[in-house]
Amino acid sequence: MLYLIGLGLGDAKDITVKGLEVVRRCSRVYLEAYTSVLTVGKEALEEFYGRELILADREEVEQEADNIFKDADVSDVAFLVVGDPFGATTHSDLILRATKLGIPYQVIHNASIMNAVGCCGLQLYKFGETVSIVFWTDTWRPESFFDKVKKNRQNGMHTLCLLDIKVKEQSLENLIRGRKIYEPPRYMSVNQAAQQLLEIVQNQRARGEEPAITEETLCVGLARVGAKDQKIAAGTLQQMCTLDLGEPLHSLVITGGTLHPLEMEMLSLFSIPESHNINGL
Amino acid sequence: MLYLIGLGLGDAKDITVKGLEVVRRCSRVYLEAYTSVLTVGKEALEEFYGRELILADREEVEQEADNIFKDADVSDVAFLVVGDPFGATTHSDLILRATKLGIPYQVIHNASIMNAVGCCGLQLYKFGETVSIVFWTDTWRPESFFDKVKKNRQNGMHTLCLLDIKVKEQSLENLIRGRKIYEPPRYMSVNQAAQQLLEIVQNQRARGEEPAITEETLCVGLARVGAKDQKIAAGTLQQMCTLDLGEPLHSLVITGGTLHPLEMEMLSLFSIPESHNINGL
Repeated sequence: MLYLIGLGLGDAKDITVKGLEVVRRCSRVYLEAYTSVLTVGKEALEEFYGRELILADREEVEQEADNIFKDADVSDVAFLVVGDPFGATTHSDLILRATKLGIPYQVIHNASIMNAVGCCGLQLYKFGETVSIVFWTDTWRPESFFDKVKKNRQNGMHTLCLLDIKVKEQSLENLIRGRKIYEPPRYMSVNQAAQQLLEIVQNQRARGEEPAITEETLCVGLARVGAKDQKIAAGTLQQMCTLDLGEPLHSLVITGGTLHPLEMEMLSLFSIPESHNINGL
Repeated sequence: MLYLIGLGLGDAKDITVKGLEVVRRCSRVYLEAYTSVLTVGKEALEEFYGRELILADREEVEQEADNIFKDADVSDVAFLVVGDPFGATTHSDLILRATKLGIPYQVIHNASIMNAVGCCGLQLYKFGETVSIVFWTDTWRPESFFDKVKKNRQNGMHTLCLLDIKVKEQSLENLIRGRKIYEPPRYMSVNQAAQQLLEIVQNQRARGEEPAITEETLCVGLARVGAKDQKIAAGTLQQMCTLDLGEPLHSLVITGGTLHPLEMEMLSLFSIPESHNINGL
């Protein structure tokens, strides 16, 4: 049996009791470490689980999952994913390949940012399509995701923006030269995401278009959701550019315009102190 | 401290290790039992947690939460919620009232249907606004939620339909007479939801409107997600009317029209046997 087990969002103890039992009895346990991270590393997990974990990077999972699948038809193998296993599409693909090999699978769910984002007080059912904001480079500055934000806003829906993670990436030079030297991991902050968003707003204005959001649009920055030191801050997009939310992972929500009174009241718990009262926005 | 703890979706062991530790050391532990249910009852939870739980019904939580808040500023009180604490808006309200009383709170997240629905293979980020389908009565047959389905479909987004739960409801007669006699709990099945949806479709046609979905629209029925005997079935809305998914809880997804090839391939794992190949729809 191939078990896909969600680890939740905080630390080692955010695994479910059921998940922990499976981890402890599987013959091999893989830790997927490229679509998200916990606030603790592999060693802390190994200590708490009382067993060794095998780090699985993108290459291993997406190309040569043979190691993962080996003997999974006759023994139990676990594949651990930060958040819930269905947060990233790459795990659906793993299930499809396992099924083709006749390997049965079972999923042990957990919290992911897709539902835990509700902790900011915005109502989950009012979220529209989720977008990903990637690190811009000098030559690659995609803006197309902004259409989805616009569509969500037009329909009064909030947009959860998942922020880029670069783990085990090679520099262009190392990639070309085939050198397996990896850059230090990078995690996009709410500041960086807000700055990129504002640049898109300015580009649209320069082209004579009316952007779907402005500097004054009410947003929510979230950091380390589910961890003891999580931070949530509600304020304008402009304020998101300079806000200090600390260590990764960060996420950003662009509100959908009109808010329910209960949403306003919840957001006011997280209002940036130096800002105007968010009710006045 | 007031702890809001998600229980996940299956049975007693779907609580997180962190959640279980808190449950075991709190002075009082409430179980919210009206917005959702697990596959096991209060007694099974009590046995596994090794402690007594206090059942909290809607009346208690929404009106007189004084019992819950009592001494929560000086001792630890836990409030257990099936799924994640932010699945229902009523829990935001509990947090707001606690905060006003100066009671600090902490949330321990878990899986909810809002993210676990990804297990059917539809990509989570492509879900639009979530809708609730309520039991119709002879005199109350709301159709307004259908506009949200339409909007989602127009934007190529899937719609998660949460199906009605009636727990501790009084009959009209008992309500009028002030008799605290409660009806047996009722949980809407995928069949009932699909039948109501088809009636709306027919009503719209009768009014000369073009409905956003038809008998042939690809849907996914889900039952007991996260439990060992969970069932997932992909087929037409018409097929959803007669499908047997067994015990509650059920949920229904109306797909957003165009699917990603990976979504199609995942759904084909759950294709209703007697149906046409869903790829042909």
